[in-house]
Amino acid sequence: MFQAKLKSETLKGVVDVVSTLIDEAKFKIDANGISLKAVDPAHVAMIDLHLDKAAFEQYSANDTELGIDLDKLRDVIRLAKSGDLIEMRQDEERNRLVIAVGNVTRRMNLVSTEGMSDPKVPNLTLPAKVSVNVEELQRGIKAAESISDHIALNANPDGFELISEGDTDLVSLKLPRDILVALDCKEPIRSLFPMDYFSNMIRAIPSGTVVQINLGNDLPLKLDFEIAGGKGRTKYLLAPRIEND
Amino acid sequence: MFQAKLKSETLKGVVDVVSTLIDEAKFKIDANGISLKAVDPAHVAMIDLHLDKAAFEQYSANDTELGIDLDKLRDVIRLAKSGDLIEMRQDEERNRLVIAVGNVTRRMNLVSTEGMSDPKVPNLTLPAKVSVNVEELQRGIKAAESISDHIALNANPDGFELISEGDTDLVSLKLPRDILVALDCKEPIRSLFPMDYFSNMIRAIPSGTVVQINLGNDLPLKLDFEIAGGKGRTKYLLAPRIEND
Amino acid sequence: MFQAKLKSETLKGVVDVVSTLIDEAKFKIDANGISLKAVDPAHVAMIDLHLDKAAFEQYSANDTELGIDLDKLRDVIRLAKSGDLIEMRQDEERNRLVIAVGNVTRRMNLVSTEGMSDPKVPNLTLPAKVSVNVEELQRGIKAAESISDHIALNANPDGFELISEGDTDLVSLKLPRDILVALDCKEPIRSLFPMDYFSNMIRAIPSGTVVQINLGNDLPLKLDFEIAGGKGRTKYLLAPRIEND
Repeated sequence: MFQAKLKSETLKGVVDVVSTLIDEAKFKIDANGISLKAVDPAHVAMIDLHLDKAAFEQYSANDTELGIDLDKLRDVIRLAKSGDLIEMRQDEERNRLVIAVGNVTRRMNLVSTEGMSDPKVPNLTLPAKVSVNVEELQRGIKAAESISDHIALNANPDGFELISEGDTDLVSLKLPRDILVALDCKEPIRSLFPMDYFSNMIRAIPSGTVVQINLGNDLPLKLDFEIAGGKGRTKYLLAPRIEND
Repeated sequence: MFQAKLKSETLKGVVDVVSTLIDEAKFKIDANGISLKAVDPAHVAMIDLHLDKAAFEQYSANDTELGIDLDKLRDVIRLAKSGDLIEMRQDEERNRLVIAVGNVTRRMNLVSTEGMSDPKVPNLTLPAKVSVNVEELQRGIKAAESISDHIALNANPDGFELISEGDTDLVSLKLPRDILVALDCKEPIRSLFPMDYFSNMIRAIPSGTVVQINLGNDLPLKLDFEIAGGKGRTKYLLAPRIEND
Repeated sequence: MFQAKLKSETLKGVVDVVSTLIDEAKFKIDANGISLKAVDPAHVAMIDLHLDKAAFEQYSANDTELGIDLDKLRDVIRLAKSGDLIEMRQDEERNRLVIAVGNVTRRMNLVSTEGMSDPKVPNLTLPAKVSVNVEELQRGIKAAESISDHIALNANPDGFELISEGDTDLVSLKLPRDILVALDCKEPIRSLFPMDYFSNMIRAIPSGTVVQINLGNDLPLKLDFEIAGGKGRTKYLLAPRIEND
């Protein structure tokens, strides 16, 4: 059973970060809130999201699962004006989700969750932690995207750097310690990542969000940030690219 | 003879509602104003528009006809800033229209009106009348468009409902009596219409407009609304689709 | 040697007027500022631009030349917010330009200037001079563009007129003497120009700019205007089209 009301902005935030990696999502629902763990089709990245019931205006649920086509959810969000509430109700008998925004009701068949895996989020020990306002990264991404199809993330005790290097051009974003929200890094760390995944993740994070970047040498990247004004949390994991020097 | 000045917003309103159905229009002009009756190329919908001379800042005309390419009129409207006046003058000798906006003058050949029919607007008796602010309908249309290529309009003594049903999804917009401006309906009424026509008509109506929806069971739809701040009127007629249950 | 800082708006103004004619530019640099003379690939138009060192927030240079891909410069400008400074530094050893905006640095290989000509700007005596705010021309261009692929510029002692005539339509922009900033014209003058070049030039000039139009009978057009708030100057030359009456 699932019946809930939430602000359209909250739902939009969830759909934005999830749809960066997948088109259809299996949300696990229990009395405390909703959560999702998913791997993208190419198995390069993972998302681990939790939205607490406190993020909802109204929430009542038992253990259940909802398979949702995110494009349809996006359609519904587009109907909402800022501040509008979105109401969602599971129709268990017919395996449907009924969503209401103002006077509009949309009834949608749920997607089968049978084929959808339950990925295990690996327990990584990543030596460097960089906390930074996401806008800083978004500017760097905008500059770097056209240069190369991969991006290097570097951390050292003095700051954080993002470098994209092509045949003729190079873009770097250098964030010294005093611009960062926090920096925990004992020695120089460097990893290379696919540009498109990293860029899509960074763009999906709402401005004003502080992101914790967890890095190791040639280890996966973990991005960790709050959603829904602290009443939820998202973690992105991204596999590194091997450098061929 | 035709020589007139009007606000660019007024002309834009006319071009928007007319160009939904046709590309070239035959305007009939007399001392009281301009009017147009036209059927779309597929003979599914009809428009009946009148703009009173009071809608113009300046108006002087004898009986005449103008065949106008609406795209060209739209080009001219784009030159105007809000509040600008547009001046139009028929050059009878050379069968042209001369339009001036600020310091720009555009002279255009008129389109031949020979092939353009003079449709008779049928005298329909439609039992249900629903008056509603067009924004309510526009939100419903936005939600319903992707669901199906037809849309059902339902009226009953308690309110009005717009339903679009596809294979897996259903969207409904329910407007109870207290949200409507007026409702005159004795018994349940339902008709089905082609989505694209209905959607284009509803979108062409400027926000803030109250639309009277006239409905019967499997009868054409009539939309009736004021234009030019009440100094003109437009009626759309739309043929129903036959339901195959 | 070249090392300078300037407002992103100033650099954008330069890139806009230059990229109308060419994709790669050879900037000549000396202690007083930067300048550029270039002909478009079809040899129909020419640009002669000078930006004084006073247009920069900081400027230090010896005689040098920079071959720059303007698209890359545009990418960098896009990163800047209004009021941001852009820093440029020539890396002579590696034949590169290093540009910094905020925390982002872009290093780009310079383009070879070997194939790029040094056009001589012809010394034309053009009898008519019309000074006008560029917005007036931009509105006329917007109206005229779809009508024909050439445009006639007319000046006479009473004012200036821009006419575009197609098979069925004609657009004219008439600017009487009192709308012009200045008019120096003894007798009627008329020349025809290619619409696309004229239109692109007029659109590239920032609003608020007063343009001096220099005209003769079937002679090239010269557009002369200040850039960078008077701390620079651009001249466009455009070859006439021969009228076949």
